[in-house]
Amino acid sequence: MTSMRRIVLASRPEAEPGPENFRLEEAPLPEPAEGEALVRVRWLSLDPYMRGRMSAGPSYAAPVGIGETMTGQGVGEVIASRAEGLAAGDTVLGSFGWADHGCAPARELRKLDARLPPATALGVLGMPGFTGWVGLTEHGRPQPGETLVVAAATGPVGSMVGQLAKALGLRAVGIAGGEEKCRLATETFGFDACLDHRAHAEARSLRRALAEAAPDGIDIYFENVGGKVLEAVIPLMNDFGRIPLCGTIAWYSGDEGGPDRLPTLWRSVLVKRLSVRGFIVTDHWDRIGDFLAEVAPKVASGEIRYLEDVTEGLENAPDAFLKMLGGGNTGKTLVKLP
Amino acid sequence: MTSMRRIVLASRPEAEPGPENFRLEEAPLPEPAEGEALVRVRWLSLDPYMRGRMSAGPSYAAPVGIGETMTGQGVGEVIASRAEGLAAGDTVLGSFGWADHGCAPARELRKLDARLPPATALGVLGMPGFTGWVGLTEHGRPQPGETLVVAAATGPVGSMVGQLAKALGLRAVGIAGGEEKCRLATETFGFDACLDHRAHAEARSLRRALAEAAPDGIDIYFENVGGKVLEAVIPLMNDFGRIPLCGTIAWYSGDEGGPDRLPTLWRSVLVKRLSVRGFIVTDHWDRIGDFLAEVAPKVASGEIRYLEDVTEGLENAPDAFLKMLGGGNTGKTLVKLP
Repeated sequence: MTSMRRIVLASRPEAEPGPENFRLEEAPLPEPAEGEALVRVRWLSLDPYMRGRMSAGPSYAAPVGIGETMTGQGVGEVIASRAEGLAAGDTVLGSFGWADHGCAPARELRKLDARLPPATALGVLGMPGFTGWVGLTEHGRPQPGETLVVAAATGPVGSMVGQLAKALGLRAVGIAGGEEKCRLATETFGFDACLDHRAHAEARSLRRALAEAAPDGIDIYFENVGGKVLEAVIPLMNDFGRIPLCGTIAWYSGDEGGPDRLPTLWRSVLVKRLSVRGFIVTDHWDRIGDFLAEVAPKVASGEIRYLEDVTEGLENAPDAFLKMLGGGNTGKTLVKLP
Repeated sequence: MTSMRRIVLASRPEAEPGPENFRLEEAPLPEPAEGEALVRVRWLSLDPYMRGRMSAGPSYAAPVGIGETMTGQGVGEVIASRAEGLAAGDTVLGSFGWADHGCAPARELRKLDARLPPATALGVLGMPGFTGWVGLTEHGRPQPGETLVVAAATGPVGSMVGQLAKALGLRAVGIAGGEEKCRLATETFGFDACLDHRAHAEARSLRRALAEAAPDGIDIYFENVGGKVLEAVIPLMNDFGRIPLCGTIAWYSGDEGGPDRLPTLWRSVLVKRLSVRGFIVTDHWDRIGDFLAEVAPKVASGEIRYLEDVTEGLENAPDAFLKMLGGGNTGKTLVKLP
C-alpha cells in the first residue's frame, strides 16, 4: 500500500455547512522521519469545535486552509516506527486529521492503556470528558446541594459533567434534543431531570420548564451551546452563580432565536454577581494526569458511563459530522475505519 | 428645631431621570430611640448606583418607594445620642438618605478618624474607593507589566483603580468625557494615557484610539460603564484577560449605541478565555479594614490623590445628581449641607 485517503476542506461554508464543503482525496502514504511513527487510524473523533475551524473568523486556533486535511484526533496502530519507545502494533492517540493514516513525532503521540477500549481516549477519557471535568472542577466550584444545568446532556461533555455533579451531591438538570435523549440522560447518566429543547420553540417556554426542574435556581450553568438555552438560563441563575463557558454551538447552527440582549445579560452578571469563565481544554493539559487518575478507574468499573455514536468508513465522516451538528447523534461521535 | 428636610422620589423616570422625579419635603425631626443617635448631616454622597434604585426593575437591592427618601450615605455630627460609645460632636458615617438629619442605631454608624477630612469617608476612602480596590485586587488579579483600562477615570472608582494599577507596575489607560478630564487623569492621577470618549461617536473609532494607547492589548478591563466602551474594548482584550464588572451606567443613560451583539461577546469570552466577574462592594465589607489599613495612610501622605465635586445645599442634590449621570461632574460628587 503506497497511498492513503483523507478528507479535505473543499470550501468554507457560507452559513450552514454541507457535504459540498468536503472532498475525499487520495494522497501518497507518508514515510516517518527520524523520531516519527506512521499510524494506521482505526477511530476518528468528530467534535463540534471542528465547525469553528472551517471558518476564517478569529478563533483560538487557525482555521483549516482550503484544500487542507480537516483537523482531528484519532486512535490507531503504529505500523512503522523510527521513534524510540514506539513499536509496530502499539495503540496510540494522536492528531492525524480526517485521514486513514498519519505520521507524527513520538512526543505528539500517547500510548494507550490496553485495559480500556481504545476509542474511550477520544470521548469519555479524551478531550470531551476532560473538558467536562476541568470546566466543572476548576471553574464551576461545585458544592453539594447546588443545582447544575448542562445542555447536550447525552454528549460526551454533558454526560461527564452531569455524572460528576451527581457524584458530588448536586442536583443535575440536563437539556437535550428529543425525548429519547432525555430518557437516556436520566436513566443512563442519572440526571435528576432532562428537558427536551425541541419541545420549546421559545426561550420563555424553556425557562418555565427549567424553573420547575430547578426549583432552587441554578448555581452552575455549564455553557456549551449558547442561544436559546443561555437565554432561558440567565434569569434563573442564583446569586454568585458560575458559568464555565467552553462552547457556543447553537450560534454556529444559526440559532439566533432571540438571544438575550447584551445589556440585559451584562447587567445580570453584575446584579447576580456571576462568574463567567471562558476556557479551552488545551490550556489545561497539565491536569490530564489528574483527570485520568481520577476518572479512568471509574470508567473501567462502570461508575461513569458513556455512549458512542459510531459511523463506519472515512468517506462517511462528513455526513456523520453534519448529523452531529444538527443534533442527530447520540453520545460521542466516532468514525470507525477498517 | 423640630423639623428636617429630605428629598423623596416623586415618580419613577420613564427614560432619562429629570428634576420632576424628585421632591423636597419637610418632615418632623426624628427622636433617637434607645441605642440610636441623631445625626446632623454635613456631607451627602451622590453615586451612580442610585440611578438603579429609582427604577422598579430587578436589581440587587429593592428600589426606593415612591414618596420615600432617596437612599444614600452621608457624614455628619452626632447631635443627640442614646447609644453607648457615641456622644454629641462625634463625626460619623451612616446611611441617612438625601436628608439633612437622620437617626440610626450605633451599629450602623462608623466613627471617623479625625486625621482625615470627613468627606473622604464617602469617596476615596469610602464605597467608591473600596469598590476600585476590591474589584482590582480580588477579581482583576493585576500583574506588573500588564495593561488596564478603566472608564470614568477621574471619578472616585476609576481614579482609585488607575492609581493602584500604576503603583503595581501596570500600564493604566483611562477613558473620560472631555479633554479637561483626560488632562486630570494623566496629570493628577498618573494614567499613562486617557481617551476622550466624546471625541469618538462610534465604538470603532474609540477602539482604534485604544489600540494605540494599549499597544500590548488589554489584560484587565475594569468595567463600570458598559455601552460603547465595552464594545471598543472586547476585541482588544488579551487571552486570559479579566473583567471585574461593577457598573453599566452607560446603559442607564440610554447609550445603546451599537453594543456588541451578544453572540459576539459570548464567543470572545470563550475564544480569549476571559474571566468576567460581577461584584457588588457590599458583599465585601469583611475586607474594609484591609482596605483602610492599606489605603488611608497613602491618602494622608498624598500618594493617592482624589478630586471632589461639591454642590452646596440639599435642595440642589437632584441637579447635582442629574449632572453626574450626564458626566458633568469631575471627581467624587458630594453635597455640602450647612
